[in-house]
Amino acid sequence: MAIPKSAYPAPFNVTRASHVVITSRDLGASRAFYVDMLGLIVSDEDANTLYLRGLEEACHHSLVIKRAPEPVCERVGMRVYAESDLDAASEFLARRSMPYRFVEVPHQGKTLHFKDASGAPIELCARMDVKPRLVVAFDQFRAGAPHRLDHFQILTPDLQAVCDFYTAMGFRLSEFVAIDGTDDLVFAFLQRKGNPHDIVFANGGGPRLHHFAYTVPDASHIIHACDVAGRMGFNKNVEYGPGRHGPGHALFVYFRDPDGHRVELFTTHYQCMDIENEPTRWDVSYLANRPWGYPPRERWYEEASLFAGVKPNYPPRRAGPATLESLISSSK
Amino acid sequence: MAIPKSAYPAPFNVTRASHVVITSRDLGASRAFYVDMLGLIVSDEDANTLYLRGLEEACHHSLVIKRAPEPVCERVGMRVYAESDLDAASEFLARRSMPYRFVEVPHQGKTLHFKDASGAPIELCARMDVKPRLVVAFDQFRAGAPHRLDHFQILTPDLQAVCDFYTAMGFRLSEFVAIDGTDDLVFAFLQRKGNPHDIVFANGGGPRLHHFAYTVPDASHIIHACDVAGRMGFNKNVEYGPGRHGPGHALFVYFRDPDGHRVELFTTHYQCMDIENEPTRWDVSYLANRPWGYPPRERWYEEASLFAGVKPNYPPRRAGPATLESLISSSK
Amino acid sequence: MAIPKSAYPAPFNVTRASHVVITSRDLGASRAFYVDMLGLIVSDEDANTLYLRGLEEACHHSLVIKRAPEPVCERVGMRVYAESDLDAASEFLARRSMPYRFVEVPHQGKTLHFKDASGAPIELCARMDVKPRLVVAFDQFRAGAPHRLDHFQILTPDLQAVCDFYTAMGFRLSEFVAIDGTDDLVFAFLQRKGNPHDIVFANGGGPRLHHFAYTVPDASHIIHACDVAGRMGFNKNVEYGPGRHGPGHALFVYFRDPDGHRVELFTTHYQCMDIENEPTRWDVSYLANRPWGYPPRERWYEEASLFAGVKPNYPPRRAGPATLESLISSSK
Amino acid sequence: MAIPKSAYPAPFNVTRASHVVITSRDLGASRAFYVDMLGLIVSDEDANTLYLRGLEEACHHSLVIKRAPEPVCERVGMRVYAESDLDAASEFLARRSMPYRFVEVPHQGKTLHFKDASGAPIELCARMDVKPRLVVAFDQFRAGAPHRLDHFQILTPDLQAVCDFYTAMGFRLSEFVAIDGTDDLVFAFLQRKGNPHDIVFANGGGPRLHHFAYTVPDASHIIHACDVAGRMGFNKNVEYGPGRHGPGHALFVYFRDPDGHRVELFTTHYQCMDIENEPTRWDVSYLANRPWGYPPRERWYEEASLFAGVKPNYPPRRAGPATLESLISSSK
Repeated sequence: MAIPKSAYPAPFNVTRASHVVITSRDLGASRAFYVDMLGLIVSDEDANTLYLRGLEEACHHSLVIKRAPEPVCERVGMRVYAESDLDAASEFLARRSMPYRFVEVPHQGKTLHFKDASGAPIELCARMDVKPRLVVAFDQFRAGAPHRLDHFQILTPDLQAVCDFYTAMGFRLSEFVAIDGTDDLVFAFLQRKGNPHDIVFANGGGPRLHHFAYTVPDASHIIHACDVAGRMGFNKNVEYGPGRHGPGHALFVYFRDPDGHRVELFTTHYQCMDIENEPTRWDVSYLANRPWGYPPRERWYEEASLFAGVKPNYPPRRAGPATLESLISSSK
Repeated sequence: MAIPKSAYPAPFNVTRASHVVITSRDLGASRAFYVDMLGLIVSDEDANTLYLRGLEEACHHSLVIKRAPEPVCERVGMRVYAESDLDAASEFLARRSMPYRFVEVPHQGKTLHFKDASGAPIELCARMDVKPRLVVAFDQFRAGAPHRLDHFQILTPDLQAVCDFYTAMGFRLSEFVAIDGTDDLVFAFLQRKGNPHDIVFANGGGPRLHHFAYTVPDASHIIHACDVAGRMGFNKNVEYGPGRHGPGHALFVYFRDPDGHRVELFTTHYQCMDIENEPTRWDVSYLANRPWGYPPRERWYEEASLFAGVKPNYPPRRAGPATLESLISSSK
Repeated sequence: MAIPKSAYPAPFNVTRASHVVITSRDLGASRAFYVDMLGLIVSDEDANTLYLRGLEEACHHSLVIKRAPEPVCERVGMRVYAESDLDAASEFLARRSMPYRFVEVPHQGKTLHFKDASGAPIELCARMDVKPRLVVAFDQFRAGAPHRLDHFQILTPDLQAVCDFYTAMGFRLSEFVAIDGTDDLVFAFLQRKGNPHDIVFANGGGPRLHHFAYTVPDASHIIHACDVAGRMGFNKNVEYGPGRHGPGHALFVYFRDPDGHRVELFTTHYQCMDIENEPTRWDVSYLANRPWGYPPRERWYEEASLFAGVKPNYPPRRAGPATLESLISSSK
Repeated sequence: MAIPKSAYPAPFNVTRASHVVITSRDLGASRAFYVDMLGLIVSDEDANTLYLRGLEEACHHSLVIKRAPEPVCERVGMRVYAESDLDAASEFLARRSMPYRFVEVPHQGKTLHFKDASGAPIELCARMDVKPRLVVAFDQFRAGAPHRLDHFQILTPDLQAVCDFYTAMGFRLSEFVAIDGTDDLVFAFLQRKGNPHDIVFANGGGPRLHHFAYTVPDASHIIHACDVAGRMGFNKNVEYGPGRHGPGHALFVYFRDPDGHRVELFTTHYQCMDIENEPTRWDVSYLANRPWGYPPRERWYEEASLFAGVKPNYPPRRAGPATLESLISSSK
């Protein structure tokens, strides 16, 4: 696969990963997990919806949880800078004959809905209602003290298509993992905001949401989040980590929420915004040789949240490496 | 004073604060301070120049120290995204009848020199030579483990002029301090990269460079930097802090280098890139009421590095508040 | 002054600094400071008394605050291992013709009251009621998360007398500060539990209680305690620090409570229990040369809590160095 | 099994776990692991012996590594307070008809050799040569910055015998793990120095040395130790963790050295020295329910260092639970 070149200037100005909308069978259990334990802040709530944000976020929400009979991901959201960028985005989609529509979403400005090249439902908006930043509300810090939503990871069997699509929108590839000796991508880290990723795509049955990730201030918050989780009866929800990522370099821990959605806490990573920064390549065999710590449990590779109303496609099972886990294992 | 509106789209794309060029009477003493003690990495050095970078930086240098009989700041540098942005920058300056010239600078791509509205010498470039990121070279971490240059602070008696100039270039005002009950600015935090500041201007005799600032991973690195400094005979170089900033919210400590240049280490602050984020206003009287900790020593307000060949102007002494310190004191 | 030799075996087995009893004009304000802000745990309370402990403490109380019209320190408490040690202690005092009496104290076993060689009221007991250790109750950690009471500091004009007295009880001198070129003590660190101090005596008008000190888990808790204090309106209560001690080596911060009592939070220091460990000597001139950070405010040297009903004596003012501050200043 | 009562006063005064003597096939590899990577300090070395200590230790050595064809543990060492305690110790052993002998050991005072009730070779001494404490030599901190040796863990099939023996010496049981519904011990934590353990015994084939443990200042040092290990090619040596212990409560990570000896780094735990502190009981079934994190690999349970010249006995395999791992597994 060829690494596509990012459009510059971008056809419209996506600024960052913004928010994710998931569903839950039990909002009380979600609240206990995300607010009482993990430390997110409630911006608003009603009988059917919980709007949460991180401690440094002035935007109304970065995580929306809706009551529903089945847990799915409804949509991932990104910000554009100005509403004029939404019009430019719709023109970009129209030129590609990709359907879109403008919708009204509570607490957001004009919002554009479409599906990306993987089939994942995306929304773009320029504005949200404003809430107080609690970045120095130290007396309200709990557990990991998650500060802001940073990125999403989505599984898809067709990484070529999503890379072509996102780089055409002006996303830059910061790092990628490829099968040794080939250009076949198994991980692609795409960014707009100047750190390694706003959205990551990994090889697997999809589109499915693998996880969304919040930053925490430092290593001690990763440990404290685990300790508080253990103390509050969420020890089984600590799925993987603490550990150190190879690509991206962050210290991480993954939790599963009561509905099975996966959320990562991680320490922030490096700035990446200069034109001379070429994408960093990692061979998949390298991933088998972790910086330290246990490998992920198999379910970390296999399980992910369905997108509402979107049937995933699975990579062909027989034509060589299929799942990420088997790719890594077969490379050892 | 009116808060000016930022140009969007910007006339050219400045991406971030990039580097600073200072002079030293004794490069050996500078190396002992910045490398052996503070933990910066040597990218290159010869008999007359030391090129340093932070641990996460892939760019060739963020701090250049040249041997000279007198310690001054030669220039502060910013990045634009592409070389085409340099041409757009020269047109922007030409429209304002501001002199500029293109120059060759070692290890940098095409570079544009000019003086900003405060008279401070600025350089813009799109490219630098590439060096390995050492963000996970944990065995090379020393003291504060400074990760990347984040911002500059410059003193000037005319904040209105610099705010007009930088916002016309597309900089956004993230926070500002004004005299109570007025719009008279005493601090202006201007940013392009999506956190509170790439360049800060404060009221005072100028243009003079007050400090440049490197990020550190967390609070423990602030303490460790002080501890290592004390251990290595640099205890008197710890000028102010550790403390918690009001505006910007970071944990900080300021050092003076052997030539008197001031460098800040601080923990990173919040993301700030959405269109609805209005500048945060602080009354100057608020600054007298610190989150905790001692007030700065008087010299922190008064002393700053001269720019090479630029004579500073001082604010009128009699027409009310003059120095920042007197403004804050008189507001108590 | 001669450094006295510690009795071995000790005439009775003091194990550690245990608790302090202070009075407050406003228990509500004390509770807000020590519990809501600083993070101590309430073991018991009634209309006139607040019993507090640190997170790792299984003993009923390490800080007792009683309602009273004037803020004083009633008594500092130490533990002996067994009740038989109390009898041995009373014999030790009787041999020295020092008054003592056995008293009943709520939540404590048999308790022995006496005044030490400085005139400070001391109590010894072997037992207390047991409370749950909250050392892993991470969801209850607040601010500095103070873990356990570690030591007291008392001012006295006669360090020779107290050193003779405490070493006769089996205390060991771990570190001391003396006037340059002499053996005149200005600080004496005395210990039983195997770290540098259970009780510290400093030259000054006394006996007065200078401070009592709680351990915190690490440097980040020192910073977080300051940050929470600032956020909750206690920024003026942060009296001195964060800083690094010379003697003892700990990272510290001192708070003043609403009644003016001083409490230190600090990171734990080194183990010190081998017979070959000779006391570490520091010249008082060395203290003027801090590892880093600001010197204490004058009031840190001068102000201290009176002991109930005990009139302090002040060192002679004219015969050379008197207060600790003047000693340190005059040595510069 | 009955929990034995600790002798008070003790027949002689053991103060703390002191040192361990192991052998290595390759002292260069040992030095690279313990010094260059882990951060221990070299006190002395010659062609056949490496004497190491932690950063806060003033004693000459806490880890002695001797060149030998096979890696074994020669001996674990404890301190008594005075040399008179060694004589009392020999009388204690003589009364029990346990062989002992006084030996000369370099850098140590008079030293007493014997085997404890598990058959493990122990040495006692009161004195060692003195080396500078490096507790504030921050510029020499590396990786985990191990501060002091804290405890040993030994496997033995007969926990009753060792508990009887050590409590007769005045050791106190701080925590223990027993098979549910019985008093059959599978873990016994025994202490003299006032924190939960100087020596731990666990059910298993023995006597074998399971691990020795050094304290580190805080959680960030646990992570940094792993990061440095990974960076320096020791990622496979990170055997288990980081994780949070149930009993003892510390944050831990276990490494295997190049010879297979196991060393733990952990954050210090709670003070435990009051007479009312009854041993904390844990059911073995509780251990299956970790605070968070992965369970240990099987080899963590099974593998341990042989003692020189001591053939281990294994618990009977058929009479129910045998190894610790099977006990924990069978209790799920």
